Amino acid sequence: MSKLFMFEKPLGMRDTLPELYQLKRQVKDAISSEVSLWGYEPIETPTLEFYETVGAASATLDQQLFKLLDQQGNTLVLRPDMTAPIARIAASTLNQADRPLRLTYDAPVFRAQQREGGKPAEFEQVGVELIGDQSSSADAEVISLMMASLERAGTASYRIAVGHIGFVNALLREVLGNDDRAGRFRRYLYEKNYVGFRQEVEKLPLSSIDKRRLFQLLRLKGGPEILSQADELVESAEAKEALQQLNNLISILESYDLSDKLIIDLNLVMHMSYYTGTVFEAYSEGLGYPVGSGGRYDQLLDQFDHHEPATGFGLRLDRLTEALGKEKEPLTKDTCLIFSHDRRKEAMQKAKQLRQDGQAVVMQELTGVKDVDAYSAQFQDVIYYIGTNGNGGASK
Amino acid sequence: MSKLFMFEKPLGMRDTLPELYQLKRQVKDAISSEVSLWGYEPIETPTLEFYETVGAASATLDQQLFKLLDQQGNTLVLRPDMTAPIARIAASTLNQADRPLRLTYDAPVFRAQQREGGKPAEFEQVGVELIGDQSSSADAEVISLMMASLERAGTASYRIAVGHIGFVNALLREVLGNDDRAGRFRRYLYEKNYVGFRQEVEKLPLSSIDKRRLFQLLRLKGGPEILSQADELVESAEAKEALQQLNNLISILESYDLSDKLIIDLNLVMHMSYYTGTVFEAYSEGLGYPVGSGGRYDQLLDQFDHHEPATGFGLRLDRLTEALGKEKEPLTKDTCLIFSHDRRKEAMQKAKQLRQDGQAVVMQELTGVKDVDAYSAQFQDVIYYIGTNGNGGASK
Repeated sequence: MSKLFMFEKPLGMRDTLPELYQLKRQVKDAISSEVSLWGYEPIETPTLEFYETVGAASATLDQQLFKLLDQQGNTLVLRPDMTAPIARIAASTLNQADRPLRLTYDAPVFRAQQREGGKPAEFEQVGVELIGDQSSSADAEVISLMMASLERAGTASYRIAVGHIGFVNALLREVLGNDDRAGRFRRYLYEKNYVGFRQEVEKLPLSSIDKRRLFQLLRLKGGPEILSQADELVESAEAKEALQQLNNLISILESYDLSDKLIIDLNLVMHMSYYTGTVFEAYSEGLGYPVGSGGRYDQLLDQFDHHEPATGFGLRLDRLTEALGKEKEPLTKDTCLIFSHDRRKEAMQKAKQLRQDGQAVVMQELTGVKDVDAYSAQFQDVIYYIGTNGNGGASK
Repeated sequence: MSKLFMFEKPLGMRDTLPELYQLKRQVKDAISSEVSLWGYEPIETPTLEFYETVGAASATLDQQLFKLLDQQGNTLVLRPDMTAPIARIAASTLNQADRPLRLTYDAPVFRAQQREGGKPAEFEQVGVELIGDQSSSADAEVISLMMASLERAGTASYRIAVGHIGFVNALLREVLGNDDRAGRFRRYLYEKNYVGFRQEVEKLPLSSIDKRRLFQLLRLKGGPEILSQADELVESAEAKEALQQLNNLISILESYDLSDKLIIDLNLVMHMSYYTGTVFEAYSEGLGYPVGSGGRYDQLLDQFDHHEPATGFGLRLDRLTEALGKEKEPLTKDTCLIFSHDRRKEAMQKAKQLRQDGQAVVMQELTGVKDVDAYSAQFQDVIYYIGTNGNGGASK
């Protein structure tokens, strides 16, 4: 442990200064308003949850959890995602509410970083959960809502990659015989480390047909024709069922005229291991990582003694703001009203009137400013109420 | 450590369900919009800070801090307030920005609870910091902005108690000779434990005049006449200066026609020990605890190697929402569009059109609902697109 500088922040922790905040705020308000128009109701959950309950359900690697002890000796975690806490509520406080439940959130989540690498350890997510509807219609709804949210936020060029973790799991099981060896392959797919995946295939004592099936999995990325190619690779009922679900989903999205934004990607494996069916990721042009992701998690609520299907998505506000940052105009600055002691009351009346008209006004007594020229230069308009002979008038 | 139920939350942690969230959201949007009209710029800081730096500067009791270790062996804290992190930024990243700096935040803060007592361990604060202006004008500005924010949020009946920690400290020093014994008295005042205060006075070997001075301190609560009564109790330049500052402040607030909401309370001692001058608390009718507080902290930035005067306030969203909860109407519910498979496209078009008009619409495929009567009962309007002969029409 080294001596800290007073200004240091913990690894992966960031401040958001006014200009970036304003942009982020626009993005989040746009998404919230779209989500609210689709009838999703907002909820909040605590930053801290028990490690044993929500921490375990979140299926996050231990080394990525921020853990602490409470005064009763229980281990707490800073929530690593919002899906598990919402599953807790859906299975308890809201277990009598009408189904399907449509909930939305906007909250920071936490993932401890191992080393300095510019990765944030705290980032804000806006997302939705649709609980109690197992149909492809529900999957199509959350995907179309994610698209509508991205468009409302101003993301012009984006793509949604759609896959099915049930298909990946079924194919791996068919080829490998059991689930034990599948984990390593899923990890390569999650990391998009296709070289590693290929090397892993070569190492295993598999028939050349089975090796080819695994290599072909890596090529299952593209338009709807992918689904029939995939169909030829698999035999099990689970795999066929997964492809049927994807087929249904795609045809619903086609009927909504949304399929031109879609890429089918049967290699898609997500960070969170609780997904069971359709999974998807959103990409914005020019960013090398997804701005959002989601999928179906039909077994997560079982962990809270409540069997219920569910699907949802989360958008990363930091990344979306970064993607949009290049497109937006800089902010216009406020009006400032600089006054001397005796003219305070006039100044206050003027400020009140301007604020009632919706204009942002800084009021500043002259004696509080060291260099009035430098200070006033930052505003678009400055109005002076100074001395006994002057009249308030805009200048600059 | 006992076995946890899956649904349990850590001590003092709460969920916010949709109805309460909506109300809280209205309150926070109202405050944010007022604060923004006064030219305050929003910033965000991380949830986790170093214990040695911001944790120490926040002057929060150790037992109230949530602490954890990072992977480098440093102790981190969940921020117990927002003033210390903003002081960190003002003294570093923003140390070259024009002064006075006007910043605002909206963020949860954390205070560990010792036992079950209904006290929240995490609560959201909206507040402002005005940095670099030592005048009474700056104090008057933050107090008037707090009042305007409360009014904008819909708090009709509130009072602001205004005191001066410099006066309390100077009087205690005059009577007790040094600062060592003053801490216990400040604690009684902070807890509003006047019985304890009196007993403490009786215990000490003081002259009857000095005892009377301490008893009289407890009576210094009321209108502007309090200031002259207080003046008679003290001799030191610090105490006189504190009263002069309060005088200036009150006369500015009078010139803004705001003094009818004020109570002068020279017993006021705050939770945070970094305050140095004017301090204030906001009370809403019918609540037994303050909905907000603030004051001047001219030495906090010194801890970040940066000498600069500052003042600010924070409002507690949970308490304000509680205060307002009794006054507001329940929310109206959404429109729901229930459709069968073949009429999905029509339903989507209708939903799109209604949403464009700003109306919130839930779209629900019929097969996703177990009991359509119970489900549809929760909405104000339900439109059905079901079967091939029907027409979409509002019902209920």
